[in-house]
Amino acid sequence: MSADPHFKRVAIIGLGLIGGSLGHAIKRGKLAEHISGYATSDATRKRAIEIGFIDSAATTAAEAAKDADLVVICTPVGALGAVAAEIEPHLKKGAIVTDAGSVKMAVIRDVGPHVPDGVHFVPGHPIAGTEQSGPDAGFAELFDGRWCILTPVPGADRDAVAKLAAFWEACGSKVDYMEPRHHDLVLAIVSHLPHLIAYNIVGTADDLETVTESEVIKYSAGGFRDFTRLASSDPTMWRDICLNNKDAILEMLGRFSEDLSAMQRMIRWGDGEGLFNLFTRTRAVRRSIIEAGQDTAAPNFGRDPTHATPEKK
Amino acid sequence: MSADPHFKRVAIIGLGLIGGSLGHAIKRGKLAEHISGYATSDATRKRAIEIGFIDSAATTAAEAAKDADLVVICTPVGALGAVAAEIEPHLKKGAIVTDAGSVKMAVIRDVGPHVPDGVHFVPGHPIAGTEQSGPDAGFAELFDGRWCILTPVPGADRDAVAKLAAFWEACGSKVDYMEPRHHDLVLAIVSHLPHLIAYNIVGTADDLETVTESEVIKYSAGGFRDFTRLASSDPTMWRDICLNNKDAILEMLGRFSEDLSAMQRMIRWGDGEGLFNLFTRTRAVRRSIIEAGQDTAAPNFGRDPTHATPEKK
Repeated sequence: MSADPHFKRVAIIGLGLIGGSLGHAIKRGKLAEHISGYATSDATRKRAIEIGFIDSAATTAAEAAKDADLVVICTPVGALGAVAAEIEPHLKKGAIVTDAGSVKMAVIRDVGPHVPDGVHFVPGHPIAGTEQSGPDAGFAELFDGRWCILTPVPGADRDAVAKLAAFWEACGSKVDYMEPRHHDLVLAIVSHLPHLIAYNIVGTADDLETVTESEVIKYSAGGFRDFTRLASSDPTMWRDICLNNKDAILEMLGRFSEDLSAMQRMIRWGDGEGLFNLFTRTRAVRRSIIEAGQDTAAPNFGRDPTHATPEKK
Repeated sequence: MSADPHFKRVAIIGLGLIGGSLGHAIKRGKLAEHISGYATSDATRKRAIEIGFIDSAATTAAEAAKDADLVVICTPVGALGAVAAEIEPHLKKGAIVTDAGSVKMAVIRDVGPHVPDGVHFVPGHPIAGTEQSGPDAGFAELFDGRWCILTPVPGADRDAVAKLAAFWEACGSKVDYMEPRHHDLVLAIVSHLPHLIAYNIVGTADDLETVTESEVIKYSAGGFRDFTRLASSDPTMWRDICLNNKDAILEMLGRFSEDLSAMQRMIRWGDGEGLFNLFTRTRAVRRSIIEAGQDTAAPNFGRDPTHATPEKK
């Protein structure tokens, strides 16, 4: 990719964790002369200006997108269609429109019809995030070393795709290409299912009558606390993902449940060998993830051990 | 608890993550004049001496336990009965025997019959750990700020219980008391179920034909990688827990599966409101865990962002 990653004007619609981090990464890499931003909440727009990851805040998405060479829609997936419809008449000839949504088939379905001739729509998805949300959650390093998946539609402009790829690389990402349908299946297992299971177990624990909530919290270092991180992600974002990647999620949930029943049976019948074999082969996956640079090898994710006693800090 | 936490001689049977960390914590707090240790593997015993978290390595558990004022059995739960039977004839009058097992009913069943008159058996369980195992995995701070649950049996010697509590506090723990049966139920939800679910989802992902293992690894930052940490814990330890806390685990698995079916139904029928409500209430649990000092508030557990690109280090 030797395309030029620079843009004159970038518009970021949605100024939360992803939009904010993108603004910071653009500033760090000096990738745009001007960043305009829009968020539905007045407080968020103000805060984004204060922090400085956008240069100007617009009061509508259309105004932010006007004159932009690159428009990145970073709202929850369910809002993408409405944003696209609103900005449609204001898009500049030759502009690139992309997004950061965690599902791609639904985004293409919702945004596609609102892309005017001469504007290039290239759906994208940076596989990066934290459990936090809002304009203060973003930081420039979020995309460093993480993959960004582009899912260009048939007939997409090759130069536009190359330029967007160069842009994400300049933001720290490694870029990959995928069919939209395959993207949605991959994400269902690496991201959607883990989050749903985390939400589910936290809900199960919260509902118990035999174990109190205070006990769950006190003894959460036994493993439970790891799940609560994912289960504290943005509810709107996750609702929209569930509603827009239904088939792939139901497929993965079905497989997971089947496997869980098999494990339940091994426990009921005391199949120690079967359990041992399962618990052994999963170790190799962790090792590969660490070797691929996608997680830290430090025990407990390298959590600061002193967090246990905040009063010491 | 104003009991004296010091012991003349401590024996640690099992020199992995927990036994090793305990040795380090005893050294840090100067809580014993001598620590004898035993592990089945010759290499582990040698390594423990090299690292220095024990003072002498015995070639049998019996030899390690001889003359000890405190014997802490830190083996997987399935080995506890055999260790207790072996050390039984060698235990000193007045000695305290305890363990660090993640189930307590089965430990009482297996160890109880092997405790001679005049020896005090006080089952215990420090709720602390990492995904790593072996003698090199231990460190003195593991128990700092974490809870240690003691489950004394009826008629237990009060001085022995108080002394063991003072000892764990001197190792950095906060001490709590519980009925053994209730302990096993609490641990089933805060520790056993999370680990089993993590093992299960990693297994499900590993079995897919439609998504490659390399894709799962590359894009694991989407959430999946968090589960692989728990799923890389010691397989023997977890097999033994499953075999020895069957009823409580099956009860929790049953509830989890029921809730998962309800969520699956919400996804299938597009119940956005139901999903949003579930995803919202789980956030409060995370907040409470952080307030209780049981996890870090730093995004992504405070993982070093540069771990993404190990070549930079």
